[in-house]
Amino acid sequence: MKTTRTAIGIDFGGTTIKSAVVKEGRILAHGEPIDTEAHTNAKSLIDEILHVITTLRGLHPEVAAIGVGLPGFVDSVNGIVHELTNVAGWDEVPLRAILAERTGLPAIIENDAKAMAYGEWKYGAAQNGRYVICITLGTGVGGALILDGRLYRGAQLAAGEIGHASIDYRGVPGPYGDRGGLEEYVGNQQIAERAAQMYRDAGHEVPLEKCTPLDLEHAARNGDPVALAMWDRVGAEIGCALVNAIWILNPDAIVIGGGVAKAGDLLFEPILRIIRLRTDPLFHENLRIVPAALGNEAGIIGCATLAAEAAEGQ
Amino acid sequence: MKTTRTAIGIDFGGTTIKSAVVKEGRILAHGEPIDTEAHTNAKSLIDEILHVITTLRGLHPEVAAIGVGLPGFVDSVNGIVHELTNVAGWDEVPLRAILAERTGLPAIIENDAKAMAYGEWKYGAAQNGRYVICITLGTGVGGALILDGRLYRGAQLAAGEIGHASIDYRGVPGPYGDRGGLEEYVGNQQIAERAAQMYRDAGHEVPLEKCTPLDLEHAARNGDPVALAMWDRVGAEIGCALVNAIWILNPDAIVIGGGVAKAGDLLFEPILRIIRLRTDPLFHENLRIVPAALGNEAGIIGCATLAAEAAEGQ
Repeated sequence: MKTTRTAIGIDFGGTTIKSAVVKEGRILAHGEPIDTEAHTNAKSLIDEILHVITTLRGLHPEVAAIGVGLPGFVDSVNGIVHELTNVAGWDEVPLRAILAERTGLPAIIENDAKAMAYGEWKYGAAQNGRYVICITLGTGVGGALILDGRLYRGAQLAAGEIGHASIDYRGVPGPYGDRGGLEEYVGNQQIAERAAQMYRDAGHEVPLEKCTPLDLEHAARNGDPVALAMWDRVGAEIGCALVNAIWILNPDAIVIGGGVAKAGDLLFEPILRIIRLRTDPLFHENLRIVPAALGNEAGIIGCATLAAEAAEGQ
Repeated sequence: MKTTRTAIGIDFGGTTIKSAVVKEGRILAHGEPIDTEAHTNAKSLIDEILHVITTLRGLHPEVAAIGVGLPGFVDSVNGIVHELTNVAGWDEVPLRAILAERTGLPAIIENDAKAMAYGEWKYGAAQNGRYVICITLGTGVGGALILDGRLYRGAQLAAGEIGHASIDYRGVPGPYGDRGGLEEYVGNQQIAERAAQMYRDAGHEVPLEKCTPLDLEHAARNGDPVALAMWDRVGAEIGCALVNAIWILNPDAIVIGGGVAKAGDLLFEPILRIIRLRTDPLFHENLRIVPAALGNEAGIIGCATLAAEAAEGQ
């Protein structure tokens, strides 16, 4: 069942806050982007978000709800931001109540990976999936789950952190006392550092800033053996993390998004190989593994849709 | 909501088939155990199961449904046993239809780990949990999930295989092309072999058959350093597998059952230590990690309850 209501979706990133008016999965108008790093506290950022909301409502007075996706631990039930990754000054902010009070509209807030997954599930690559694992590859590795045809949040609403799940219990230390978390291998910075080291081992000096996923994709497409080996390794590591989630969740679809995923077959081929190699056919024969379809707009569309549905349910 | 109907639960094991009449989580009468290994085909085993059912119905004519838990991949929706672990001759057997036709009662079939988890959730250690991971430690390592207050089965009804989820992507090879699966470290046979090796490394020759979980528990309680180190290692490995599931599922309870779990604090202490060490407090502060409460009867109670509820829903 899909809502026909119009809502504003706001994708709160560590560098930029993007927004748009959304109806039935389509963007009707974009808001002016906000520079996150130009603000040192929550209050001034919220004021600027409210300014963008006012402008968008001027263009689309039919807007019936506001949805915000945020990078961090979010209490979506009580509407409180516990803390944000890489954005200071956001400790226990009751953002939903603030937005509702200042706009007079119903609002929801959600973790950004969950918002993206919801967008891809309702209008993107995971439509018709009932058991979907979404993973987004970037500076960090985010994840979210659609289970039994619903967004799955877990006991503290914090589920889906496949980036912290480990592929090697004696592996690279992570920020939570964990070891071998996928993010410690395939985050953008980690990929760059490992590629630079592989180039050094091969007798080449390639500066770190020339080892972005995009650089490595171009190099691999030109036959560079180090870049090819790097993608094979990164894909296999992501595949191993997904294998664990597959044995536990038996999904029917996996959606892979984020900057790193743009490498396409360079990444998907080793992921598929590892999954076919390391799971029973019952678990992979009918499993679709697909790139995200909504690109940078998945988060906006997802949280706008969550907001529109919540408003409809009221 | 709990059913008040009476049902027969049948726990199909690789060596013994146990059965009982169950009402509201309590055993009213036990059936005669059946020696699984005395039968070489499905037909003669089914005949003997039907004989036990007839006897139990003679004692309790109010029996309203039959539930069977089986060790292997089970299609619980269509009532078909795909294949059983360690029991030959059970390929694509339409067991539910056979039982329903021969008894005139509604029947359900389910994977044994899922049946155990259901029993523990409805009447045992996981009551009041809404997001529960159940793990059973024995010859193999079984698992099952209660998510959002429902038994979670996944796309092919095969979810919960935490025993095949890997703790080390370059680790011990498993039966499905997988590497580092938990079962390859903490299955009964693997524990015995590793303990015997640790004894050898320490200059002692202890035969394999004296390295059962029970032997190792007694030795550890007597201060044997090899046995103590073995339990610490086994607990840490189980803890690492659970850490992965915790990051992904954010559960509110974990139930640990099966023979190995009887080691109590020897096992639970390192499991808890690893979970506290390797997850964010949000994920472990309100997480209960408890031993199974229904012992060997969890499976019988679970599948009887599933059967009674299904009959009530009809």
